[in-house]
Amino acid sequence: MVLPLSQRERKVRILGIDPGSIVTGCGVIDSDGMRNIYIASKPIRVQAETLPERLKLVFEGITSVIHQYQPEAVAVEKVFVNRNADSALKLGQARGAAIAAAVTQGLPVSEYTPRHIKQAVVGKGNASKEQVQHMVRVLLNCQQNLQADEADALAVALSHGHIGGTLGRIVESSRPTAHKRKRR
Amino acid sequence: MVLPLSQRERKVRILGIDPGSIVTGCGVIDSDGMRNIYIASKPIRVQAETLPERLKLVFEGITSVIHQYQPEAVAVEKVFVNRNADSALKLGQARGAAIAAAVTQGLPVSEYTPRHIKQAVVGKGNASKEQVQHMVRVLLNCQQNLQADEADALAVALSHGHIGGTLGRIVESSRPTAHKRKRR
Repeated sequence: MVLPLSQRERKVRILGIDPGSIVTGCGVIDSDGMRNIYIASKPIRVQAETLPERLKLVFEGITSVIHQYQPEAVAVEKVFVNRNADSALKLGQARGAAIAAAVTQGLPVSEYTPRHIKQAVVGKGNASKEQVQHMVRVLLNCQQNLQADEADALAVALSHGHIGGTLGRIVESSRPTAHKRKRR
Repeated sequence: MVLPLSQRERKVRILGIDPGSIVTGCGVIDSDGMRNIYIASKPIRVQAETLPERLKLVFEGITSVIHQYQPEAVAVEKVFVNRNADSALKLGQARGAAIAAAVTQGLPVSEYTPRHIKQAVVGKGNASKEQVQHMVRVLLNCQQNLQADEADALAVALSHGHIGGTLGRIVESSRPTAHKRKRR
């Protein structure tokens, strides 16, 4: 895929999030649409006794990553739930807190389907989870071990980078004009 | 139920929230554990094209009510989902954003089961939704029409007031000590 010149020239810092009720993965990359550079990744462990405390950990964890790495865009996997309603509620709560953290920082949030992510990272819409995680390491030239949640978060960030904000189902939040990000 | 003297003497301002993916109800009351005074209620309509925008409306709506009415405690109905997983995910996302808004304002958040709410408001754990909404108006001497979401939000606030923070399954978030609320 050949991206427009403007996109190839401009490096964008992207935060990928893989929300979960036990661990929420975060991955930050720089992408010019062709080359991608690994910046950081971490699993936010959501270990607390009560639901409000767990959601606070998700919200504050994402907010802290945004403050530390100053991404310009956020990407989240679009989920299709076929598990039981109780798991879906728990996942929904974590997603709600994570996405709220990103939009309240004035960042545009895009959602990508699992098929789009696999297509962008492996080139095959029906690739296995292991193939995606392997290609994340290859594409980012990542030496260290990545946990599954980190790799999944980096995969959705890569999808946003590859797709360059023009393809896929882009879901952009309104970005308050008063909110300025300091980056190089 | 006779509450301890300290609780009967002290008036607490409580925000009840009834999160929903289309409308999130809010209700604010003052309660000394015996008498309850209606302060305000409103439905936050979550009408926006994208999920991030909708979650932003929920988060900012709750934050704005907290800033305007300065509650000291927040109460939310504990949900048990038996509907399909997709509805549960949507409800979960709204709950996640709403609860995150309250905890990031440093407020303790309590969850009450539907049974507890019905018991507290009607005196019968298996009361109908209509009975609960009727008793909310009676207990708060409310003249104006209340939408169902507002009445449900006021019902959970009343449960917290009645129960006085001592009964029910109280789920209290950690409250940052640096966060001070200005109230009389």
